[in-house]
Parts: sequence; C-alpha cells; structure tokens
Amino acid sequence: MDATTLVERLRAGDIRALARAVSLVENDAPLAADLLSACFPYTGSALRIGITGAPGAGKSTLVDRLARHYRKLNQRIGVLAVDPTSPFTGGAILGDRIRMQERVADPGIYVRSMATRGALGGLARATADVVSVIEASGRDTILIETVGVGQDEINIVRLADITLVVLVPGMGDDVQSIKAGIMEIADIFVINKADREGTDRIEKEVRAMQSLASHHGDWVAPVVRTVASTGEGVDALAEQIEIARTAFLQSGEFERRRIARWRERIEEMMREALLKQVRAHGISSNQLDDYATQANKGQKDPYRLVPRLIQNMFVPEKEQEK
Amino acid sequence: MDATTLVERLRAGDIRALARAVSLVENDAPLAADLLSACFPYTGSALRIGITGAPGAGKSTLVDRLARHYRKLNQRIGVLAVDPTSPFTGGAILGDRIRMQERVADPGIYVRSMATRGALGGLARATADVVSVIEASGRDTILIETVGVGQDEINIVRLADITLVVLVPGMGDDVQSIKAGIMEIADIFVINKADREGTDRIEKEVRAMQSLASHHGDWVAPVVRTVASTGEGVDALAEQIEIARTAFLQSGEFERRRIARWRERIEEMMREALLKQVRAHGISSNQLDDYATQANKGQKDPYRLVPRLIQNMFVPEKEQEK
Repeated sequence: MDATTLVERLRAGDIRALARAVSLVENDAPLAADLLSACFPYTGSALRIGITGAPGAGKSTLVDRLARHYRKLNQRIGVLAVDPTSPFTGGAILGDRIRMQERVADPGIYVRSMATRGALGGLARATADVVSVIEASGRDTILIETVGVGQDEINIVRLADITLVVLVPGMGDDVQSIKAGIMEIADIFVINKADREGTDRIEKEVRAMQSLASHHGDWVAPVVRTVASTGEGVDALAEQIEIARTAFLQSGEFERRRIARWRERIEEMMREALLKQVRAHGISSNQLDDYATQANKGQKDPYRLVPRLIQNMFVPEKEQEK
Repeated sequence: MDATTLVERLRAGDIRALARAVSLVENDAPLAADLLSACFPYTGSALRIGITGAPGAGKSTLVDRLARHYRKLNQRIGVLAVDPTSPFTGGAILGDRIRMQERVADPGIYVRSMATRGALGGLARATADVVSVIEASGRDTILIETVGVGQDEINIVRLADITLVVLVPGMGDDVQSIKAGIMEIADIFVINKADREGTDRIEKEVRAMQSLASHHGDWVAPVVRTVASTGEGVDALAEQIEIARTAFLQSGEFERRRIARWRERIEEMMREALLKQVRAHGISSNQLDDYATQANKGQKDPYRLVPRLIQNMFVPEKEQEK
C-alpha cells in the first residue's frame, strides 16, 4: 500500500491502518518520509500535552483520567506512552498501556506504546513523527506520557505544547528532588495522590523553588492537586491546562515552542538526508569499517581523514551560486 | 597556544596544559580537531575500564581503590567521572570527585569530572575525545566512571574495553532490577558493600539471569564481591579485570570493540563535517528558522523540502568519479 492510500485510510478511521503507519514511522521505514509528507497537511492543530515525573507517581492513571475527561467533551484523543526502557527499570509501563487499550473499546481514544528498542534514529525523533501520524488520524488532543526522569524523557516532553510534571508526596527527597531542570520544563505541577500525607510539604517545596527559578516569560507554573485513582482534581487540572494554553497563545510562547520544534526536526532531517548522500557517494559501510580498523591500528588519523573525504563530495561553493 | 605545543606540554607532565586541552575538547572548541589529531599517535595502548551501576552503589569509592591499586603497580592513571546530570538527580558526584582530586596530590593520578551541560555534541562524543587526551598524557589505565543507569550511561561505558557493573545488596528489586540490558554490557559484576545482608541473594539473582542471557562469545561475567570502603576484594577485582583483558585479547573481542568504537566516532565526525559544509553552502541559522516558521504555518512541507535542498549541494555522483 502506498503512503497516500494508507493516510486516506487512517483518516477515514481505520485503526489498523493507523497502527501500521505508526509502526512504519516509528521504525523509520523507507515509506516513512512519504507517510509524514502525506500526513503533514492534517497536522498542527491538535494540542499536545506532555506528562512526566518519577516512576510510581501515577502518571498512567492520570493520563487515563485526562483522556476520559476530554472524551466527555467529545474530543478525539491520542495517547502515546513512551518508555525509554532504561535497562535498570525495564518496560513495565507497556503492560499497563496494553491493558488500557483493551479497556478502551472506544475508537475515539487511540492508545499507543513505544519503547526505545524499536525506535531507529532517536526516541525524540520517533516520538515527534508518531505524534504527527496520530494527529493526522483526526485527534484534538494528544497526551504524550513518558516514564521516568532522565534526559531522554525531557527531550520527549519538550515535544509537547504544555508539560505537566507529576510529583507525589512522601517519596523522599533523593527519589524526586525538585531540581532546577524540572522547574524549567514544568508548565503545570501536578501533585498526585494528594490524599496522602506530605502534600502540603511538597507543594511548599515547589513554591520555594519557583521563587528562585527563572520563568517562561510571565508564566508561573500552577500547582494542581489530584487523586487520579478517584478522579479528584482532574477537572481542575484540565482547567489549568486550558488557562496555560490560552496564556501561551496570547504571549506567543505557543508558536515559539512549535517553531523551535520544527527547527530541530528540520535539522535532523538534514542530517539524515546528508548521510543518504554520503552513502550514494560511495562511502559504504565496508569502507567505514576499513577506516575504523586503520584508525585502531594507528595507521590513519581519522581527525584528518574525515574532513577531507567529506569536502570532496560537495559542489564547490562558488560553482553552486552560478 | 597551538595544538602541537599544548600536546607537547601535556605529554611532558604539565597538568594545567592537560586540563586546558581536556576543556577545549570537552567543549568542542575550534582547536579540538587539531588537538585530537596531535594526540592520536599517543593513544591506543591504555586499558579503559568502565564502571557503572545504580546511584549509591559506591562506585566513586571503588574507583578510588582501583586507582590506588594500579598506582601501586607504578601505573599512571586517569579517572574520568561522567555525570549525565539528570535534572532529577543533580550533579552530586562532582563534589565527591573534586574532593578526591584534592586528596590525590600524586600527579600519577589525574582525575577529571565532566557533566552534560559542558559537553557540546553529545556526552559520549565528549567522553571519547576526553579519554583520548587523557591517554595521550601518558596513562596506562583509564577509569571511566558514570553515575546512574540510563541509556546515556550505557553509551558512555561502551567506550571502555572492559565494563564493570556495580550492584549492592538490599536495594530492592525496583531500584536496580537486573534486567537484560545490563547483562549485555557487564563484563564483570561487582557486588559492592558485600558485608551487608542480601549479598548471597543478589549474587544468586545475577547467576540466574546469566543462565538465561546471551554472552559475548564464551565469556561469562564473573561476580566479584568488594567492600570498597575498606578495600576488601579490590585485589581480586583487579585480578578478574586482568583475566578479562587477556581473554578478550585472545578471542579478538578486544580489537572488535575498539574498531566498533572507532567506526561510531568516524561516523559522528562525518556528520559534523557534513554540517560544516551545509553552513558553508549558505544554509544559515536564520534560513532554518524561516523554514521552521513556514513548516509551522503548514506552508512548506519539510519532508519534501529538506531532501531537495541537500541534493543540490552535492557533486553529482557520476561527475565525482571523473
């Protein structure tokens, strides 16, 4: 099936076509660029909400509640759960997600999980492209959930328009110490499991950090308390998300973030296109192995070799201007 | 100072010249390529030992002990502590390391810390290059320690010839569950703080995982017990490292890893050289911003635009063959 047909089908509500397109894009298959190009006209209007936080914070349940909330407003929802699969934490989320998909018989909610291993060319790249495909299937809101708290996860939530950082009371400072880094990415702090002891204390800590940290323009991330297991606070959270969206639209922050995201993605596409050209110019995998072997023997200095090799492939700059 | 002079000085034992060269390379300064080229003839013979494991496993103390062990054998040692600085964990290790450097008045041990923020172009790239510079200063063994347990850390320890994974008893399964991912990178398991309860259990778990996992050829990672705080087991660990080194040299694994490392580094250098050419061909940062703005407005499909842009820069393949 060609890209245009596949995109027509997924737009017509064919969930299997959507799942197939997502897999092709996730794995950076040969058809991926055509697929993304065919999806491009149908993207750009959905709201992308990123959800991150320490393991055990109840993110999946919260995402579930948010999805249902938007569904009640008759929105069509996409959920992308990304698990950078640290070898030390494993892929526990995926099981939860599969269960959620089973529970969700409603075609208005599309749930997809993604782990590092399947994602060629970087998890943030794969996430961005998969979100585009899901959006093209006609979604109003896309929830991007990521497990854990490292740089990978931050790169992923930075793909969102609005980022929620989920904290829980009583996990102790060394588990989820609120460092400057998350102050920078949080648009809204969610204190989940807020029926537990320690909720006041963690909110106070967040506030204290905020008074020290720099803000995105005039926005000071609000703190919302939820109990995702019962649904308490979810309406208030959705309201805060709407307030943030409006504020970012008015301040230009919304557009600024989206342009920055495109800029990064374009640079990455350039890198990929360049490598394709390099292969077309006869620098094969075998030849790279030879260079590596020679470098290892100390016979050929790669710091000199590589720039020379590359230079020979390009049209001289003056000639190009003709 | 030019690259040749700086490398002459660091080879003559000038620690300040070494520190300066490391900083230049870490930050990918304009002089970096020349520096690495000048260091290249003096690299390739040091043994690189990677040390990773969950936070709190006592890696720094263990590295300290290993460094002193090799020092007693009259080796010259480099220690590179890399902290991927998760915004959730912060840079606690750096303080420890600075204290270690202060304690080490011995110029035979050079200790350096590196955090993500200073490293342009990727932490693994920076780590590889910094190790080369440290080695060129005349080091027999280089210990590459990394804090934490994510993909970043695994990319870093993969730069080593031999990788130690440090575990501790009694941290509970969810903290450091021994997943398939670390079975693949561990050449030697170290159970540190082995005077604690739970040591037998964790060793049993490692053995059980090993019986399921695939191995590097015939090598089955041994399990060594240490108490780094007292130095217990460190001689036995050094012995196991020597056994692994000999085995990998004989099986060809040693060379295979080093060639694979060079291969990756060469590919990365190619990417960098390509981007330089792109800038030289007039694709400026402002122009990329324009493309991103147009993509965001839905006016210009980047999935079509980018390949076309790149193609125009290259010498046609047939012409190049002339």
